[in-house]
Amino acid sequence: MEDPTQLSEAIGELLDTEPGPRLADLVRDAHPADLARALRDLPVPDQIRLLRRLDRDQAGAVLHELDDSTRAALVQGLDETELSGILDQMPTDNAVAVIQDLPDEQAEKVMDLLPEAKAEEVQELLEYADQTAGRIMSRRVVAIHEEATVAQAIDHIRETASAEQQFYLYVLDDHDHLVGVVPFRRLLTAPPVTPVKLIATSEVVRVTADTDQEEVAQLVTKYRLVAIPVVDRAGRLLGTITVDDVLDIVQAEATEDIQRLGGVAGDETVFDPPRAVFPRRVVWLLINLGTAILAASVIGVFEGSIQTLAALAVFMPIVASMGGIGTTQTSTLVIRGLALGELTAPHVQRVLRKELWLSLTTGATNAAVMMAIAYLWKRQLLLSLILGVALVLNMLVAAVVGVLVPVALKTFRIDPAIASSVIITTFTDVFGFFSFLGLATLLIRFLL
Amino acid sequence: MEDPTQLSEAIGELLDTEPGPRLADLVRDAHPADLARALRDLPVPDQIRLLRRLDRDQAGAVLHELDDSTRAALVQGLDETELSGILDQMPTDNAVAVIQDLPDEQAEKVMDLLPEAKAEEVQELLEYADQTAGRIMSRRVVAIHEEATVAQAIDHIRETASAEQQFYLYVLDDHDHLVGVVPFRRLLTAPPVTPVKLIATSEVVRVTADTDQEEVAQLVTKYRLVAIPVVDRAGRLLGTITVDDVLDIVQAEATEDIQRLGGVAGDETVFDPPRAVFPRRVVWLLINLGTAILAASVIGVFEGSIQTLAALAVFMPIVASMGGIGTTQTSTLVIRGLALGELTAPHVQRVLRKELWLSLTTGATNAAVMMAIAYLWKRQLLLSLILGVALVLNMLVAAVVGVLVPVALKTFRIDPAIASSVIITTFTDVFGFFSFLGLATLLIRFLL
Repeated sequence: MEDPTQLSEAIGELLDTEPGPRLADLVRDAHPADLARALRDLPVPDQIRLLRRLDRDQAGAVLHELDDSTRAALVQGLDETELSGILDQMPTDNAVAVIQDLPDEQAEKVMDLLPEAKAEEVQELLEYADQTAGRIMSRRVVAIHEEATVAQAIDHIRETASAEQQFYLYVLDDHDHLVGVVPFRRLLTAPPVTPVKLIATSEVVRVTADTDQEEVAQLVTKYRLVAIPVVDRAGRLLGTITVDDVLDIVQAEATEDIQRLGGVAGDETVFDPPRAVFPRRVVWLLINLGTAILAASVIGVFEGSIQTLAALAVFMPIVASMGGIGTTQTSTLVIRGLALGELTAPHVQRVLRKELWLSLTTGATNAAVMMAIAYLWKRQLLLSLILGVALVLNMLVAAVVGVLVPVALKTFRIDPAIASSVIITTFTDVFGFFSFLGLATLLIRFLL
Repeated sequence: MEDPTQLSEAIGELLDTEPGPRLADLVRDAHPADLARALRDLPVPDQIRLLRRLDRDQAGAVLHELDDSTRAALVQGLDETELSGILDQMPTDNAVAVIQDLPDEQAEKVMDLLPEAKAEEVQELLEYADQTAGRIMSRRVVAIHEEATVAQAIDHIRETASAEQQFYLYVLDDHDHLVGVVPFRRLLTAPPVTPVKLIATSEVVRVTADTDQEEVAQLVTKYRLVAIPVVDRAGRLLGTITVDDVLDIVQAEATEDIQRLGGVAGDETVFDPPRAVFPRRVVWLLINLGTAILAASVIGVFEGSIQTLAALAVFMPIVASMGGIGTTQTSTLVIRGLALGELTAPHVQRVLRKELWLSLTTGATNAAVMMAIAYLWKRQLLLSLILGVALVLNMLVAAVVGVLVPVALKTFRIDPAIASSVIITTFTDVFGFFSFLGLATLLIRFLL
């Protein structure tokens, strides 16, 4: 629990002045998560020098803790022999997490340099699709045959290296099918001669290797698990996913949702190099430029009315803006409900009714305030009325598209977060301009 | 792992036709999380009937798993004696989570009906501030004096009821100060006569009772813990927070951030009753109405120019809209970086430089496209040029406010997510209208 800024300053200084025993002392006892955080604040050449001073075990742990963009910059500076040496010391699932992000060429070289057995393990995990249970699971499980006793199970655990982060013993039948689970706590307090199958829980919440990681996270959260076993289609135990990885998934999925809603890529970070970010940002802005031009072309239809009565141009952005906020409120709630698995098809109608009621009541409230202000400003009763009606109508449209567009996107397996905001505010912009300017144009002779 | 819709249909049917042994069978083996999900889809009277059929232990577990709004509706239908009977069976931290959300009057009655010892425990936790480690910690810890042996520790664990969800043994000195931690796995494989202090890890990541729950979640995530001990200011062990609660916190904080960014309250759900939601939604819309009127008043200043050249009204929303999207992209990334603790003061300048570079390059790209389209549309070179210049200027403003406003809010301890979107898009709206209409007005005689 060290201050990462202090740690990185201390490391930076020692690297410059005395990269000997004092540096070794400083880093030896530091937690990999702290080292990773400190490393991020160093210039890349210093990052590489530091990583070379760590033993390979610790270097692997630090690499695992780094955020994607820092890691990508760092591994480019390492030669493949060094990198494969470090990866060889990492648990296979963590090594896979690094290798899958490498440029193809570097990944191939690194795989060639890995010992054959390790390379095969890595290859096996890489064959599972990205973001599935198989890709992220750890193969290091503590499992024993159902006929074994508690004493035998404890011996087995003793022999299993690096099981410190294990909390459950899995119980298998003759064909490696997962048939039970025993928390270590129960092993501690059971008589040594008891067969494990007698103290095992037989209903084990499990996932198959092709389960999406988001579903894994939902199950672990819902059932309050510390680890979830991964099985193949026949029910044979393949590995486990521990809750620390689930926490990483939950944070990453939340970040992805937040950023997609805000029109940036799900994996962009504040520290990404601007040149790499440019193409992704500019695409989103160009899409928005297209929808803005669409909305502008609606205004263009009514250019004559505006020429006649410029006050229309003053009020029209208010109608569009209120619809935009209203639909953002609705869609945000719907998108989050969909992501958490709370909102499912049978509830859509109920949510739509609720949002329509809300848009009508909040729309009417805002319309009343707006009409009063517009009347005091321009002293035109009819103009104020048109403004109020257009505002309420646009809020109703906002509610409908705010519910239905995200639900429709989800139905077509498109992430509602990525596409909603631009699509739905286009609806409210276009309809907002159209309803206000349209009504005003119909009644323009009474407005002058 | 049952389908909640099926389970709730089956329960609903049995409640109507045969609420006897078959219902009891159905619910006895169901996981509380599944029951909670199924219960949510029943009408409130059926929810109450079902809860009354569960034994109090199970009823408590279901209550704990329910989402806030379903729980609030349900407990209103229970009388205080029933409710306190259920709460008495719940772990104190879970009981507190229910009681803290009750209306004051009902909470008081329930507290009066609880057995004195339980009421005192509840009261103790309630004295810690909301959303701090003290409020959410569990008092059920497995702890032993440092001089005890492994065999004594195992005996102690055997005697401690309901320690199934425990994974660590905490080690205390003579004055209950936390001095070490032993994972159960290590107890399993250590010789029984070993003193626990010899196998304990002495550097224990811990939090004090007043630590904010968001910081607790960050520490548990960073150090990959399964539980984190809570101590008082003197370092005495008070309780622990387990990772399942941390997962709930992370999900809730993500939901809060997403929803606040979208202009809805952090704890609103798709199923909240509309009347309860109305006041919160309408406030946000009224605030936006105010900022929209501010932007409109800028347009009002240039009404004369628009009267002269209505084409200005067609293009002005494009400049504002692009600034809005640009600043949303920047601020989303900054707000998420702040929430994850990745972006801190020393990085602000670097991020600002990057965002300015991005806004200039993406702004120039979009301006080029826009100018070409505007020229083809209106055949006015100067108007197109003004549009392009205003667009780039507004993107630069977007970058500056997108970085600085969230950082400033964070500095003043205001959640950047709650206030940013309305504030920052007001800047880009106002500046967008002002720059475009201002430039056009300066040069209007060349435009006609």
